Amino acid sequence: MGRGHVELEPERGGDLEPEKIVRLEPDRVVLLDQRRLPDEEVELECRTAAEVAEAIRTLAVRGAPAIGVAAAYGYALAVARGEDADEAERALRSSRPTAVNLGWALDRMRDDPSAEHARRIHEEEVARCRRMAAHAVELFVPGTRALTHCNTGGLATGGYGTALGALRAAAERELLEFVWVDETRPLLQGARLTAWELEQLGIPHAVIADSAAGSLMAAGEVDCVVTGADRIASNGDTANKIGTYSLAVLAAHHGIPLYFVAPTSTVDLETATGDEIPIEERDGAEITERFAARNPAFDVTPAELITAIVTELGVHRAPYAESLAVSV
Amino acid sequence: MGRGHVELEPERGGDLEPEKIVRLEPDRVVLLDQRRLPDEEVELECRTAAEVAEAIRTLAVRGAPAIGVAAAYGYALAVARGEDADEAERALRSSRPTAVNLGWALDRMRDDPSAEHARRIHEEEVARCRRMAAHAVELFVPGTRALTHCNTGGLATGGYGTALGALRAAAERELLEFVWVDETRPLLQGARLTAWELEQLGIPHAVIADSAAGSLMAAGEVDCVVTGADRIASNGDTANKIGTYSLAVLAAHHGIPLYFVAPTSTVDLETATGDEIPIEERDGAEITERFAARNPAFDVTPAELITAIVTELGVHRAPYAESLAVSV
Repeated sequence: MGRGHVELEPERGGDLEPEKIVRLEPDRVVLLDQRRLPDEEVELECRTAAEVAEAIRTLAVRGAPAIGVAAAYGYALAVARGEDADEAERALRSSRPTAVNLGWALDRMRDDPSAEHARRIHEEEVARCRRMAAHAVELFVPGTRALTHCNTGGLATGGYGTALGALRAAAERELLEFVWVDETRPLLQGARLTAWELEQLGIPHAVIADSAAGSLMAAGEVDCVVTGADRIASNGDTANKIGTYSLAVLAAHHGIPLYFVAPTSTVDLETATGDEIPIEERDGAEITERFAARNPAFDVTPAELITAIVTELGVHRAPYAESLAVSV
Repeated sequence: MGRGHVELEPERGGDLEPEKIVRLEPDRVVLLDQRRLPDEEVELECRTAAEVAEAIRTLAVRGAPAIGVAAAYGYALAVARGEDADEAERALRSSRPTAVNLGWALDRMRDDPSAEHARRIHEEEVARCRRMAAHAVELFVPGTRALTHCNTGGLATGGYGTALGALRAAAERELLEFVWVDETRPLLQGARLTAWELEQLGIPHAVIADSAAGSLMAAGEVDCVVTGADRIASNGDTANKIGTYSLAVLAAHHGIPLYFVAPTSTVDLETATGDEIPIEERDGAEITERFAARNPAFDVTPAELITAIVTELGVHRAPYAESLAVSV
């Protein structure tokens, strides 16, 4: 266990409380270190905005909504302790490039950098997840076997979850039979985090190699694909974890619906199409330390491959330029 | 290093000699242990047919043609040392279910179980690879950026390689600009073995997460997909490493040709369609030791998604029921 880490009592069979995932204390931001899950549940303490930015950059906290919340707390912390606010904002804003939520949360915090405001952003994010789930659950029929990619649960959002929140609500209404969990290489957010959350929630699931999704679809074992999103352009093109685009093509080929579940804080009407979304290229060493590797962390799914986008406002369908325009 | 292992001098920048990959000595079959690559180059010594079967089952030797060769050597060894031939055959035949080459090699060995015959099967397999490569190279144009999956090089075939042999021949003719190497989860044959072979051959390449193939195609960075095969049904449906089917759908969606390169020993005219090909389900622990996992090792690509199948006889195109029928 490294410096700044506090070991937690393992919790099983329960819910992930928002303040367990990320919270602001008077002199620090405290994060559940997602790099150590599921082997260890340890907290990471960040005492400056730069430390929060580093936690975001190194994926101690990840997931588009959750990094927005963490950045809000980091900014509030920086202002409270008299750091240079512009510098804190720059460090946080540049910590990761693809998710729009970072900039969205910091834009809001600039107007009111108080701890209360950051907590309100967090509470609103979780409340939005519950509203998204209420909308998304209408897309499920009894016996649904869903496939999901990456992690979009409480960990990714600071509570409840986007796509995983929708699956959770579907399970509560007894509409969900099974969840196929893409392991999500290279960092295994599916195998490490989504499987861990589904286990806690008691939802039947199995982890698969990402490359097995196609043959499961061909075998008729997948009824829908449900994922979160990192940035949604105004035409509906959606950036999400690398591999989502492949799933979209495969789902379309098999006539399987593809749903993105994301808060309006992920919709970026300033970005016209997916071509304008910056795609983070991470260190090839995440794939292999030995050989040359190419490691794009996200891809863009064109709107025409998307069945519906669910935000807290409802279910948006094509043409997205119209249906999303009402969302922000 | 376990029992039965002999450490080798690392070899770089050169060719993989067939006898380095698998060979028969008077009292044992000696294999380059592919589970230990690329970290260690060690030999595994098998002194009974059961030990060879175990080496095949546990992937110390893998790749459809190579396991046929190993089984032939294992059978010759068993007969030479007076083992029950039927029992040896059963153990070897049942060591893995999907590749047809195992049964093909054992059928041949039953007629003549001599060491010389097993060596001839090995030599013929390597010679077939070179003939396949000569045919396949006609499919390449200058500047080709190919994407490949799993390992189909010398390691997979006992020398030279199928798809990787074709890429090698294309590189020798200066037609190949770059190779994208799918890391190939869960066992990373691409990241561990293909990258290692390409490095030895001096062919420019980068390893990618399997799920990144789609977005590379969308970005126009892939000119063709080239893989090996584990079993080709008489209608052209082709079983290969899990993930190949997803690549096939993605390639078709992007108008990118998909080529299978495989010896006629992989063509199974007794199998009418892909539906009849048994698909090995391996231990979920290969994906995760912690959670429930589903781990199909192969999938089937339907003939209509295949641009061409290359055997040592030439380039076969649809309708495969006719073009493959001449092959055996």
